[in-house]
Amino acid sequence: MKIPHSSTRLAGIAALLLSSAVSAQPAQSAAELAQQGDDPAWAITRDLTTDVGPRMAGTDAEAVARRWAVRRLQAMGFANVREEAFDMPVWVRGAEEAWLTSGLVPQKLAISALGNSASTGPKGIEGEIAYFESFDALAAAPDAAVRGKIVFIDHDMKPTQDGSGYGYYGRGRFTGPNVAAKKGAIAIVIRSIGTDNHRNPHTGVTNFEAGVKPIPAGAISNPDADQLVRQWRRPQPVRSDETPSLKMKLTLTPQSLGTRKSGNVIAEVPGSDPSASPIIIACHLDSWDLGTGSIDDAAGCGIITAAAKHVMAAGQPRRTIRILWAGAEEVGVFGGKAYFDAHGKEKHAVALESDFGADRVWRVDFKLPDSAKALSDRIAAAVMPFGVVRGKQPANGGADIGALVQAGVPAIDLAQDGTRYFDLHHTQDDTLDKIDPVQLRQNVTVWAATLAILANSSNDELP
Amino acid sequence: MKIPHSSTRLAGIAALLLSSAVSAQPAQSAAELAQQGDDPAWAITRDLTTDVGPRMAGTDAEAVARRWAVRRLQAMGFANVREEAFDMPVWVRGAEEAWLTSGLVPQKLAISALGNSASTGPKGIEGEIAYFESFDALAAAPDAAVRGKIVFIDHDMKPTQDGSGYGYYGRGRFTGPNVAAKKGAIAIVIRSIGTDNHRNPHTGVTNFEAGVKPIPAGAISNPDADQLVRQWRRPQPVRSDETPSLKMKLTLTPQSLGTRKSGNVIAEVPGSDPSASPIIIACHLDSWDLGTGSIDDAAGCGIITAAAKHVMAAGQPRRTIRILWAGAEEVGVFGGKAYFDAHGKEKHAVALESDFGADRVWRVDFKLPDSAKALSDRIAAAVMPFGVVRGKQPANGGADIGALVQAGVPAIDLAQDGTRYFDLHHTQDDTLDKIDPVQLRQNVTVWAATLAILANSSNDELP
Repeated sequence: MKIPHSSTRLAGIAALLLSSAVSAQPAQSAAELAQQGDDPAWAITRDLTTDVGPRMAGTDAEAVARRWAVRRLQAMGFANVREEAFDMPVWVRGAEEAWLTSGLVPQKLAISALGNSASTGPKGIEGEIAYFESFDALAAAPDAAVRGKIVFIDHDMKPTQDGSGYGYYGRGRFTGPNVAAKKGAIAIVIRSIGTDNHRNPHTGVTNFEAGVKPIPAGAISNPDADQLVRQWRRPQPVRSDETPSLKMKLTLTPQSLGTRKSGNVIAEVPGSDPSASPIIIACHLDSWDLGTGSIDDAAGCGIITAAAKHVMAAGQPRRTIRILWAGAEEVGVFGGKAYFDAHGKEKHAVALESDFGADRVWRVDFKLPDSAKALSDRIAAAVMPFGVVRGKQPANGGADIGALVQAGVPAIDLAQDGTRYFDLHHTQDDTLDKIDPVQLRQNVTVWAATLAILANSSNDELP
Repeated sequence: MKIPHSSTRLAGIAALLLSSAVSAQPAQSAAELAQQGDDPAWAITRDLTTDVGPRMAGTDAEAVARRWAVRRLQAMGFANVREEAFDMPVWVRGAEEAWLTSGLVPQKLAISALGNSASTGPKGIEGEIAYFESFDALAAAPDAAVRGKIVFIDHDMKPTQDGSGYGYYGRGRFTGPNVAAKKGAIAIVIRSIGTDNHRNPHTGVTNFEAGVKPIPAGAISNPDADQLVRQWRRPQPVRSDETPSLKMKLTLTPQSLGTRKSGNVIAEVPGSDPSASPIIIACHLDSWDLGTGSIDDAAGCGIITAAAKHVMAAGQPRRTIRILWAGAEEVGVFGGKAYFDAHGKEKHAVALESDFGADRVWRVDFKLPDSAKALSDRIAAAVMPFGVVRGKQPANGGADIGALVQAGVPAIDLAQDGTRYFDLHHTQDDTLDKIDPVQLRQNVTVWAATLAILANSSNDELP
């Protein structure tokens, strides 16, 4: 990917010649600083994933990550660095194993429990598989087709640049277990909500309605789902004579640990004008437990923090920039809710979040008041040299700033390229080697350019 | 990849016009048959990996695979289909878990035991890591640098088309554990002999010299090795104050089960001339236990068998073609040795093996008697249209025909493109979805073209 400079090459060379001629450095913009030297986003992503690694919400590892975050943000020169604690219900993974047991030879499947899955107990359960080609097919099925069985949901999710496959195919994970439980299934196993072909189950949270008793719920990797489907479709000789239907043995022993502490970590670049409301920029500090949480979401914390650092280095902005490293996002956005409970009544000028990996920003979307028309034009023009298209739909915000945006805080999305995001999302393969430092830096550059404009916007333009 | 037809397009069209004009099908060559209709190589690869899946040498799964193989080879119309049993020592995997324990938070590593690894016992062991950047660095180290520690061997193996990286970097696995054991290490963990960046440990056999007490030996995935090395190189703050050195907790509980039965499966295309010695073509039926053994080596069995089938369909050849699906290759080439013990004194015209995945054949190498100069020219000319270069080095043969070739049987290598082979080799990711049917069929076509020439070669050309 080409990373253009914000000025033309000729202008850059002219500036360089001028600076050496007169021995005076011209002031550099935040976006210019983002393109030089070591990238703080890379350093944060590398060190958080190396020093702490997986940091599941509500666990000791997440608490270590918060202390690590406070030290790092202080060392980078930010102000008002603090933890803000909150309570949350904690779920942790146990043993997990699945076998196809009805073929010529029992075959092991790579499986991970979904967040909030019930336990099968240590001895596991065995049952006949009820196959559904999609979430919709399960939803339409009569209870009799499901009762007493292990539901399997298949599908064929493909990569999309904007990640829109996730919401559509993700229903199998978000609500499939609840639907299966209501129809009397003894468990549910889904094809991973993922676009890779590695033996990586994609975990993620599921939720059961109040009054619905949770059932064991897991995801198998795409190659394992392929294998299950091939056995499902093969003629009878494949299966042993005694078991003409496809069967699975499933052991998942996750536990709910009750209420524990989590927390948000907050830091600020103080603005020069006390009359100006702050800008809030967010990522999440917690991660799933299978990988080291590099693309999800150490990189997001790296990107927003590096951009704020560059804005600070370019000269004090008018507005305060508040950095939120939210806790406990993955398992139910508890950090975002806690921030809103504590700060929702404060005025916020605008909210942005980075939580979609580390590949390049390709589109900018706005959800701003009418007063900000010229502001949005300035931002679109500033990020256009870095390969960023101006989108036509309103910005969504992000999970951790969702409650703020819902309550009317303006939002901007610096939308990242999600083409390979769901190859890695919520798997053991979310590790540092998957981060492309060139694309990571493009993110920081685009964020720095955007943030510099926002942080110096007038009180007439933003609330 | 372009798969050219063996004749020019125009000649093909002319033949088609002629055949419709006179209502008589011209006889088709084996290579032409290989390019048409369903590919028996794909069917064998798909069905063996789906119906049986992993089939570790000496286990029940391998025995099921032999029975499956006999049925399939009989159904395909081959003659003299039979099992030839042999005894072998059986080693099976147990629990496997590794943790880096000296950082801020214990971090889990993806690990698999190497074949012939000793057990740590169910409680595991913990020790300081002795880091070596290569096998050679370990070999050169004084015993004092190793004694009582867990050795780690790093390296930077990259993909090569001819697979030559394996022999060079593979020493860390083949003999690293033996060297570490002799120097007094309590265990050894190596960076996987693999070229991917997934959380896939690459297993494989290791061997301890007689008189050397085996130690626990495992391989961690490349991303995990990266993580270990980053922690190794990080400044002190990463590690907790009490444990300035890097430590690992290791649990591996494999077992040696003693002597068990394995076996080869053999089938033949009978030749028309009883005075002609047979051609032996080989693959191996067993696989490592982590994946379903698709590229290693169901595809090889599919390729050689489909080629033999096409030669048979094109008209009875002069020489017998003997198909060897060897047992127990992965853990010590026990099937190849058993074949040699039983048949080594019989005359064999030439030996070929397919055991390097399913990507295209790119080079042909010969190790033939002087009498076969014109024969090798005919073969090189026949495979050249399919993108196959004539090599300059002598053919190696392959593991299962190794003893035959060592004893003087001529050999031909139809060398496959190994660029991505070591991404998958001996991992849980060796599954059917990794096979490219277009490249698989090119293998069959090249094999069919070669085999047709060999099977009709004169007694003056080959022994």
